[in-house]
Amino acid sequence: MRNSNREWVFAERPDGEPDMDSFELREGDVPSPKHGELLVRVRYLSVDPYMRGRMRDAESYAEPWTVGEPMEGAVVGEVVESESDAFDAGDLVTGNGTWADYTVLDAGEVAPVDPSIADPEAYLGVLGMPGRTAYFGLLDVGEPKPGDTVVVSGAAGAVGSVVGQIAKLNGCRVVGFAGTDEKVAWLTDDLGFDAAINYKDVDDYRSALDDAAPSGVDVYFDNVGGPITDAVFTKLNLDARVAVCGQIAHYNDEGVPTGPRKLPQLIAPRAKVQGLLVGDYATRFGEASEQLGEWVATGELVHRETVVDGLEDAPDAFLGLFSGNNIGKQVVAVADAE
Amino acid sequence: MRNSNREWVFAERPDGEPDMDSFELREGDVPSPKHGELLVRVRYLSVDPYMRGRMRDAESYAEPWTVGEPMEGAVVGEVVESESDAFDAGDLVTGNGTWADYTVLDAGEVAPVDPSIADPEAYLGVLGMPGRTAYFGLLDVGEPKPGDTVVVSGAAGAVGSVVGQIAKLNGCRVVGFAGTDEKVAWLTDDLGFDAAINYKDVDDYRSALDDAAPSGVDVYFDNVGGPITDAVFTKLNLDARVAVCGQIAHYNDEGVPTGPRKLPQLIAPRAKVQGLLVGDYATRFGEASEQLGEWVATGELVHRETVVDGLEDAPDAFLGLFSGNNIGKQVVAVADAE
Repeated sequence: MRNSNREWVFAERPDGEPDMDSFELREGDVPSPKHGELLVRVRYLSVDPYMRGRMRDAESYAEPWTVGEPMEGAVVGEVVESESDAFDAGDLVTGNGTWADYTVLDAGEVAPVDPSIADPEAYLGVLGMPGRTAYFGLLDVGEPKPGDTVVVSGAAGAVGSVVGQIAKLNGCRVVGFAGTDEKVAWLTDDLGFDAAINYKDVDDYRSALDDAAPSGVDVYFDNVGGPITDAVFTKLNLDARVAVCGQIAHYNDEGVPTGPRKLPQLIAPRAKVQGLLVGDYATRFGEASEQLGEWVATGELVHRETVVDGLEDAPDAFLGLFSGNNIGKQVVAVADAE
Repeated sequence: MRNSNREWVFAERPDGEPDMDSFELREGDVPSPKHGELLVRVRYLSVDPYMRGRMRDAESYAEPWTVGEPMEGAVVGEVVESESDAFDAGDLVTGNGTWADYTVLDAGEVAPVDPSIADPEAYLGVLGMPGRTAYFGLLDVGEPKPGDTVVVSGAAGAVGSVVGQIAKLNGCRVVGFAGTDEKVAWLTDDLGFDAAINYKDVDDYRSALDDAAPSGVDVYFDNVGGPITDAVFTKLNLDARVAVCGQIAHYNDEGVPTGPRKLPQLIAPRAKVQGLLVGDYATRFGEASEQLGEWVATGELVHRETVVDGLEDAPDAFLGLFSGNNIGKQVVAVADAE
């Protein structure tokens, strides 16, 4: 165990595109857990697009980060000191901590990590918040039926890749939008998507959809927004469902973004569009974890993590999300197993 | 009975704002009903915003009008010749006919009109399609709960005026947007709205809503679209429901209208936005007619019709919808009772 602790602090709220000015690495003492807490040596930490919202000084679903305080987020790590009967030193756990070498977690809010199901980092992706978001968002908001065409934007990301595969498991035709040929190949060759569109390679998304989704769109799972979403909305079938999970194309916008009005397009298909936050399903997380774990264990659900090595590169890993650097879940490897 | 029949024919599809070039009054023979049909002398005909969509040569929820063929729409009239056992000459009925002195209706698709409940023209409004649209749209899509704040655009129109009153009957705080002081006074003084905003008199809709809907918006029933809707979307509460019934501000747009993107605004409140067509509730029309008739009979539901006199002025009445000329339901009086 190290004698000191490195921790990323939120240094400055960005306007528009964030950069390194928002991050400051500080060195301090290793913290001490209080009663009911665990000191955890971080193995992997999670960087997620939703964190861009936490950089704003505005009330929203996720508490804003406080300038001068550590960056918060999901981690996987080993308990090194336990002040709780529920966990022992050496246990592998996941919970909401900080971007640090060592972090203190509330024992009542962590979950055990079972490396026999998947590598620990998967607990930040398919077996963590992104996987649960995909599970509840697709099944509860998207309500896919066999034979439906399901379109996913950000399809090669942590959430989208799981959405598409669950849709396949439900008998749907699945079309994904992604931003590189490598991602497109991963979706169709490894994940079983029926079609995938490299949106950086295509001028006319609508005509690409005419080919990829010839029967129109019954379910749209949107992680991105912008022109992809504009095109999908022109193809919505009767009673289509749209789950608005993310709008990463707009997270760095300054001011209110504009685009084609969508409400007039909802009337003829009687489409339903609904915002989605996984926290609303907290009472059903057990159901999701069990099902996702089973699918991962049997290999029915393929997952992938893009790993950046070293705590010092955590801000780069976060900023890279907005350039689409990750395939599957972006994580930061902070330390190896001891 | 006249020996000839005047009938409005759809002469030309408009681009953008329609004008008189789209309409042509023709004189011909009084038609003859076939087996199962009724010849009806039209007393009132309905002009409705949704008809703008029927002027387009595009597949949509309502069949496009055919150039050279009569304008179709709801009518109330007296049976003058019946080729059906279900109705006799002299019966007052409502159904989908043409903009004419005499029209032929399918006896299987007409409903009786009971003048003891309300004047016949009310069967084109509160007791017709607009009333049913308000009923199902508010109750099924809007799902109002006591204490909710319900905002209605186009609040003094045929649908909006009924929506607001049903919301009041369900214990909601009701705020309406309308375009004249007379309409605003009607909403608050006669219909019991808690607040009404003359949008032509107000620069900042958002700040007007801060006053009128201080607890935010739980249900938005949208008949209009445009900047009113843009403002309401900034005030959506957690789990807000938006019923997209109409978008009259955009019906005459050429090309795709643009505006602030709304999908990013849906995530934090997990709002649900849904397109609405009353035809989907056809199997439950009986329920709505019974309840609306009861509320009208007891005076709990106030209704008003704006009547333009004379078949020759039907196109003016239709075009006037887009200038907001009507308070309550716009109808055209074609003939008096005999």
